Amino acid sequence: MSEEKLFETLDPEDWDSMRSLAHKMVDDSIDYLKTVSNRPVWQQVPESVRETFQSSVPVEPQQPDEIYADFMTNIFPYPMGNTHPRFWSWYMGNGTVMGALAELLSATMNSNMGGGNHAAILIEEQVLNWIKQVVEFPSEASGLLVGGGSMANLVGLTIARNNQAGIDVRKKGVQSIDEKLTIYASREVHSSNQKAVELLGLGSDSLRKIKVNPDYTINLDELESTIKQDIDSGYKPICIIATSGTVNTGAIDDLNAIADLCSKYQLWFHVDGVIGAIAMLSDTVKPLLSGIERSDSIALDLHKWMHVPFEAGCVLVRDEKIHRDSFSLIPEYLTKATRGLAAGSNWFSEYGVELSRSFRALKIWMTMKEHGTKKLGRMISRNVDQARYLGTLIETCEQLELIAPIGLDIVCYRFNPGKLSLQALNQLNQEILFELQEQGIAAPSYSTLNEQYCIRVAIANHRSRYEDFDLLIRETLRIGKALYQARVINS
Amino acid sequence: MSEEKLFETLDPEDWDSMRSLAHKMVDDSIDYLKTVSNRPVWQQVPESVRETFQSSVPVEPQQPDEIYADFMTNIFPYPMGNTHPRFWSWYMGNGTVMGALAELLSATMNSNMGGGNHAAILIEEQVLNWIKQVVEFPSEASGLLVGGGSMANLVGLTIARNNQAGIDVRKKGVQSIDEKLTIYASREVHSSNQKAVELLGLGSDSLRKIKVNPDYTINLDELESTIKQDIDSGYKPICIIATSGTVNTGAIDDLNAIADLCSKYQLWFHVDGVIGAIAMLSDTVKPLLSGIERSDSIALDLHKWMHVPFEAGCVLVRDEKIHRDSFSLIPEYLTKATRGLAAGSNWFSEYGVELSRSFRALKIWMTMKEHGTKKLGRMISRNVDQARYLGTLIETCEQLELIAPIGLDIVCYRFNPGKLSLQALNQLNQEILFELQEQGIAAPSYSTLNEQYCIRVAIANHRSRYEDFDLLIRETLRIGKALYQARVINS
Repeated sequence: MSEEKLFETLDPEDWDSMRSLAHKMVDDSIDYLKTVSNRPVWQQVPESVRETFQSSVPVEPQQPDEIYADFMTNIFPYPMGNTHPRFWSWYMGNGTVMGALAELLSATMNSNMGGGNHAAILIEEQVLNWIKQVVEFPSEASGLLVGGGSMANLVGLTIARNNQAGIDVRKKGVQSIDEKLTIYASREVHSSNQKAVELLGLGSDSLRKIKVNPDYTINLDELESTIKQDIDSGYKPICIIATSGTVNTGAIDDLNAIADLCSKYQLWFHVDGVIGAIAMLSDTVKPLLSGIERSDSIALDLHKWMHVPFEAGCVLVRDEKIHRDSFSLIPEYLTKATRGLAAGSNWFSEYGVELSRSFRALKIWMTMKEHGTKKLGRMISRNVDQARYLGTLIETCEQLELIAPIGLDIVCYRFNPGKLSLQALNQLNQEILFELQEQGIAAPSYSTLNEQYCIRVAIANHRSRYEDFDLLIRETLRIGKALYQARVINS
Repeated sequence: MSEEKLFETLDPEDWDSMRSLAHKMVDDSIDYLKTVSNRPVWQQVPESVRETFQSSVPVEPQQPDEIYADFMTNIFPYPMGNTHPRFWSWYMGNGTVMGALAELLSATMNSNMGGGNHAAILIEEQVLNWIKQVVEFPSEASGLLVGGGSMANLVGLTIARNNQAGIDVRKKGVQSIDEKLTIYASREVHSSNQKAVELLGLGSDSLRKIKVNPDYTINLDELESTIKQDIDSGYKPICIIATSGTVNTGAIDDLNAIADLCSKYQLWFHVDGVIGAIAMLSDTVKPLLSGIERSDSIALDLHKWMHVPFEAGCVLVRDEKIHRDSFSLIPEYLTKATRGLAAGSNWFSEYGVELSRSFRALKIWMTMKEHGTKKLGRMISRNVDQARYLGTLIETCEQLELIAPIGLDIVCYRFNPGKLSLQALNQLNQEILFELQEQGIAAPSYSTLNEQYCIRVAIANHRSRYEDFDLLIRETLRIGKALYQARVINS
């Protein structure tokens, strides 16, 4: 083997030019975030740019600065848009500068969070302790940072199944359970819970979707009567999933009432708090979440309303042993040592699906330290207030209407000039939304509630200002009227 | 509300000082990686440092430079150690500088990979296309980037279950299947597969662990006879998991023989290629992986032997429709649009457990472009050669012995001065390992094979040099002899 081949590595051939490139990346990143509000919220990736991503696997090395130039030209200008002050689609956070920098540091250390004896593990423990304090969980509770809410719900529901099945379901499987297990949630439950139930082998038929009240919270009477009926029919209810912050409208189920039902029927109490649980930081929202501290497990997303960059999900479990019993599996190559690198009692791989995990705790740790819980809470309170503000703008405008009560920070509305069929109205509002996005003005998303297509504004955004909602309404009306007039002329 | 509260955000209060801090982070990160070989491979986190992580949730903001100083003092010096040239524990990669920088850029954009119409989605598609080319999968196959091998195996086995169950298992659940499903793998199969089988509700009893040959590959005769026996007893075999690169010794199952069996019995053919599949990049290893291109699904980890920073797992599935059928679930708030941000036919949330995902494709894209497949393959070939080199050092030394045949890049050995009981020998080697780690010399891990504790050297390391293995042997002997003499004197 040649000397060169003997000593080559994946390290930079020229450390100095890599260093210069890294400094350029930092400047560009800082500029990008500093000037985000000057750019369109979203823009289509041009066909010519799309074509550049068709090339086959690179065989020969390319120069780092060329790769970066490619990134700057073809990728950086076409983000999803959620860093922008007028991005209100689906439900996600903006990210923060410090959070992004933490990712560089975390990937530089490249520590693996499966287990072992090193500092990153202690940071994840501390972050979990902080989140427990926020949701008023006992300090001896356990937890895990995961990719996001889907995984957090999956972990919670896995424990619910394993703990309530009445047999050793890890060993014997669901087929060995005599009765059919059932799980309860409102019709507004997030799809990730159904995916979890399917994955767990329980079948989506076993997820009883309970009707909601006019405010989109779960109907407690129907919930209890369905449980009773299932018991009478020979099913074995195991769990209620309460939603604190539904994705359509931000509704918060009555957590104390659900805790009481869980107690009465000895069910696992899981809170899908992916949207709303972190709003425990907000003085104004906190009272609405009363009862969350009584749950058995909580799913949270810190990349949503706490604005940590993706991915930053979290699951907390009241009973550490029950949690570990669902996931611990220690083969000979992972046995813990008493000393050295493999020591340490807390191996996170015993608390979830994944073994190797990144050091995502760092960006959470830095974000929470940088801002503190008070300010993070104020950001949440302001978004809730902005939703109310937007609601008032809509209600005081004749051609606009709210399609659902405003829960937390989510506003569903439509432009309604009158005299249009439901179908025409739905199509008109869809086109308004397309125009809002394509003109780079704002990026709400949409939903369909009681067959009514609506423009859905989910305000988990620390950069949104009140004036951004004035703009949204002004532009909705401008575009809506223009489209409506064109339609009238054409018809 | 005060003016200040009205406009406050989570952006830096002072952009210039945040920019300076970011430049400092870059310099420190580059220095950290440039000088990694000068530091101990691992060191214990001191008690005084541990104590700093006990403080409760931060309420008030802290200055970014203070937070960073805390990081530099208490976290950065105590990594897991896998960036170091003499880290050979468990199985993980080193990371790369460009990969770490990509994480900064990715978190700055903060795009969400659940779906939508933006550039990051196209990069994930391109990266998946590249990996398909590497493992010689058809271009119309589907895939998904995931956290790691555990999730990749879970996705593959979920599809195996759903596709082979004979009923609509997503809707009806495992309890509605008449026969009990069974899955086959060798005794050396990675624990993540058992965790997946448990999660899927099949029960670990249904995972038939087949005995291995002396080279730790699956015994094909016992595999087929077990399948036949299960069929005769009324079970329904659904899947064989082949391992390409076992975690204990790096053994590669006979993939063509397993493909033939899967064909004969109409079973799903899943390859756990978390360790070895990416070695398709290596000219010397590639022939050993023959048959991988015939599989139905493959789990890979690009944060292992391709050295992308955590997390970078990947799953590929031959049949896109079968893949999507297992995971697609589209509620009203996620319906695809024909235009705007929510357009695009390829929504990755239809191919896995998670909805929100980070833009991890970027670090893979940059790493593959920076080095190209030829060089990435050479790094793998060299590690395999280094394992052979280490094997020769061990075999030519009277007081050392190999505990298993060397598969791929994993060497299991022990110090054996003779005349010791198995128990004493096991304890002695455990102490040698502790000393190697605690003295900061090298970080192999360990396993126990046929009751023999062994020092396990997994060489997925682009920074390891041949001389590092000379050092390992020299230090093993030095420490081993000293411990042995102390024992003789004490006894």
